[in-house]
Parts: sequence; C-alpha cells; structure tokens
Amino acid sequence: MTDEGEIPEDHPRYQSLLTRHRIEEGVEKGITSKQGLIAEGRGESFDYLLGEETIPSADEAERAAAAQLLLAEHAVLSVNGNVAALVPGEIVELAEATGADIEVNLFNRTDERMQAIADHLREHGAETVKGLTADARIPGLEHERGKVDEDGIYAADVVLVPLEDGDRAEALAEMGKTELVIDLNPLSRSPRTTAIPIIDNLIRAVPNMTAYARDLADASREELKTIVTEFDREKALEDAENAIRDIED
Amino acid sequence: MTDEGEIPEDHPRYQSLLTRHRIEEGVEKGITSKQGLIAEGRGESFDYLLGEETIPSADEAERAAAAQLLLAEHAVLSVNGNVAALVPGEIVELAEATGADIEVNLFNRTDERMQAIADHLREHGAETVKGLTADARIPGLEHERGKVDEDGIYAADVVLVPLEDGDRAEALAEMGKTELVIDLNPLSRSPRTTAIPIIDNLIRAVPNMTAYARDLADASREELKTIVTEFDREKALEDAENAIRDIED
Repeated sequence: MTDEGEIPEDHPRYQSLLTRHRIEEGVEKGITSKQGLIAEGRGESFDYLLGEETIPSADEAERAAAAQLLLAEHAVLSVNGNVAALVPGEIVELAEATGADIEVNLFNRTDERMQAIADHLREHGAETVKGLTADARIPGLEHERGKVDEDGIYAADVVLVPLEDGDRAEALAEMGKTELVIDLNPLSRSPRTTAIPIIDNLIRAVPNMTAYARDLADASREELKTIVTEFDREKALEDAENAIRDIED
Repeated sequence: MTDEGEIPEDHPRYQSLLTRHRIEEGVEKGITSKQGLIAEGRGESFDYLLGEETIPSADEAERAAAAQLLLAEHAVLSVNGNVAALVPGEIVELAEATGADIEVNLFNRTDERMQAIADHLREHGAETVKGLTADARIPGLEHERGKVDEDGIYAADVVLVPLEDGDRAEALAEMGKTELVIDLNPLSRSPRTTAIPIIDNLIRAVPNMTAYARDLADASREELKTIVTEFDREKALEDAENAIRDIED
C-alpha cells in the first residue's frame, strides 16, 4: 500500500484515490467490514450521480449542521467502521471545533473492531473515544445494536449519524434527540426522517462542517438558531434527488 | 453462514438475501475481492434506482444477447470474481444452452483466485473452464490484465462481458469481437460502447438469457439475425437512464 502523502493533491482523481487508499488501510486494520465495503460502493454510485461534488443545498446543510452542533448542550459524533476508515482525522477536528464527543457505534459490534477503531481514532488525535463502556441501551433496538455509553450518545441532545443505518436513526429520533445524518442516498430512510439531512460524501462533508464551525465560533446563539431554522430540509432532499436525476454523461 | 436453501423463495427480500449469501460465500472461498465488494455496492445502488426489476428494454437486450450467442461461431462467457460468486450455476446453464465456453478473467489476476474461481464453477457443474492456460494476450492491455486463452477469448467472435471493466471491453471491441455487456450503470463506458448493453442485475439477467436461448434453440439463423438487428441499443440505454431518473420513493 502506498503512503497517503504520496497521492498528489492536484491529481484529477485525488478524492477517489484517497478514498481507495483509506478503505484499503481500513481493511488491513480490521476497521472496515465486508458490509462496509459494499456500503462504500453504494455511496460511490450515488456520488457519481451527484457529480462527485458538494451541491449548494448540501453546503447549506453542512452549515446548518455545524450551527446545530455548536448550539447543542451535549453533541456526539457517532462513528462506524467506514467513518473511522475514511475520515478519522477529519472527525477529530470536527469534534474539536464543535466541542462534541466521539463515540464508536457499530452495526456488527465486536470487541476487536471496537478496539481497532478506537485505536485508529486515537492515532489521529482523538483524546477521548466513547462507546467501549456500553453501559446504556437505546430503547427499541436489539441488545448488541442498542449498546451506547450512558455519558455519550444516551445523554446527548444532538447526534451526528454519518452513513446509513435507518433503524438506529429512527430509534435515536424516538428518544427525542436532534439528528444530523450524512448519507449519499437522498431516498434512503435515515436522511428522509432526520432534522438535517446532509446528502454528500463524508470526505467532503466533514471538513466543510468543521470550516463552518470555525467560522461560526463567535456567532451568537440567535444567529446560530436562525441558520438552523432557515435550513429547508425538504428542499435539500429535493435538490439532491434532482441532481441525481439530471446527470448527463 | 446459513445454507442457501434456507432462504425462502417467497421472501420479499429473496433476491437481496440470496445475493448477500453468495457474496459472503465468495469472500470465504477467496473468490470475491475487496474491489468486488465495492463493485457489488455500486451495482446495488443502480439496481435500487432501477426498481430492482428487469425493465422491458433490458428484457429485449437479454433476448437479443441470447440470439447473438446462438449465432456465434465461438462464443465465450467471461467470468470474474463477482460473476463466479453471484451466478456460478446460472453461468454454467447459459453456457450449456448456447454452446459457449466459460473463461475466467480477473482485473487483479492471482493464481489463487483463478484456481478458486475455476473450482467454484466446476462445483456448479462446469466441465471446462478456460483462462488458466493464458497463452495469448489482448493487444492494448497491460501484461497481466491482457492474459487470455488462445482457444478461448482470443479466438472468440462473441464475448459476454458481465460487469464493469471499461478498458478490457474497449480492447476486445478493437479486436473486432462482438460484445455483450451486463452492467447496472447505463452511463458507464462499457455498456455505452458495446453492441448489446444489458442494464440489469446479473442475478436476473443470466437466467433470463438462458430461458431465451432455450426458447430460440430451434429458431433459424434468419430469425436470430432479425432479433439482433431489431434490438435498439440507443433506446435500451435511454430507457435505463430514464428508469434511474424517474425513481420515486
């Protein structure tokens, strides 16, 4: 495997090469699962149809999500295998810029993968990684799937849930939490039911949210609330669907 | 892993469960690669957008492809890791129904995977599996990628190339071969440049081609030629693109 630093940033396929490199590293480290690889492929297709760019309404969603994270009493960024593999350093920076916690939560939870992911995040600068204590449960999910930290996702008022997991997104919403969902498929269940659907590639969305969080660091709560209120979730979903439908070769 | 026979055929997600089961088995047997898992995900997204059904123009493409295989002097079905994992028995049946050869050809060729795939196909009834001799080269492809059997793909006049591999599809077309491409993305290079693009899921397309080949077993060459000539590739690509664009949740 090549070193990430060897991929020239001005390469026309930089984003794709970087993604491929990080996914390969994720597999080697036991972070990325088989299901994660298939999910990556699903995302690639939708990103291809979106034009592999952050569409304007996704940019607005990322700004609103940054504002929502700054407004939170206790925000948590939920991290699964693909998030850890694809944007480990970027998630740590977003946590720092917003004061959010990082918590690992897996669809197929094993101690080995939990540990590998926590280690990988720490190598990328994370100081505290939650999710390993697992001393609370999300109601309505089966035992293993529902495990969370009591002082993490269980207590959070705002949770960023990147990537597809419809059941969990729904169960968290039923607990009254405000959810921010990053998903490349605007038709899938979790973005359609969330407060702020972010239809964009993780690798573009997370750094952009961090940039907005830094821009808004000195904004008043009123300003932040206005940004969140003015965000139009229906329009964002519709724009993303239109972008997918109107693709030309 | 559950046994395939344990998946009830009337289950609403039968096709999806069967696909998942076969992919898992492919990984266990060393047939399915990391790239194959990602490609499977890409296919899933396009299939979702197509409505997970064989659209009428894909059905016509499958009939024309069956006719083209029956017309061939020497047809070869090219098999990669995902084809072997997803439709091993179905490919053997198609070969039998059309008199075509089966040849393994991999994007990332290793002796271990070649052997595992050939074994898997033989377990599913294949008598002769080509591709292991590799005594000829497709001009214009790098050494490993261009390896084929001289009495297989190299000598063939008609080749079925399921799943994405734009470079190879192009190089085969330049050798003057008639290509039939199965790919779920109507915008990707190989279906757009092929004689008969089949925009459908392998798991539906291959058995349907076999059924048509059996129906047409007694057809005259004139009838078969008419079926091929009347097939409208531009319309098939356009229909598939429209199906993808018009999806409703």
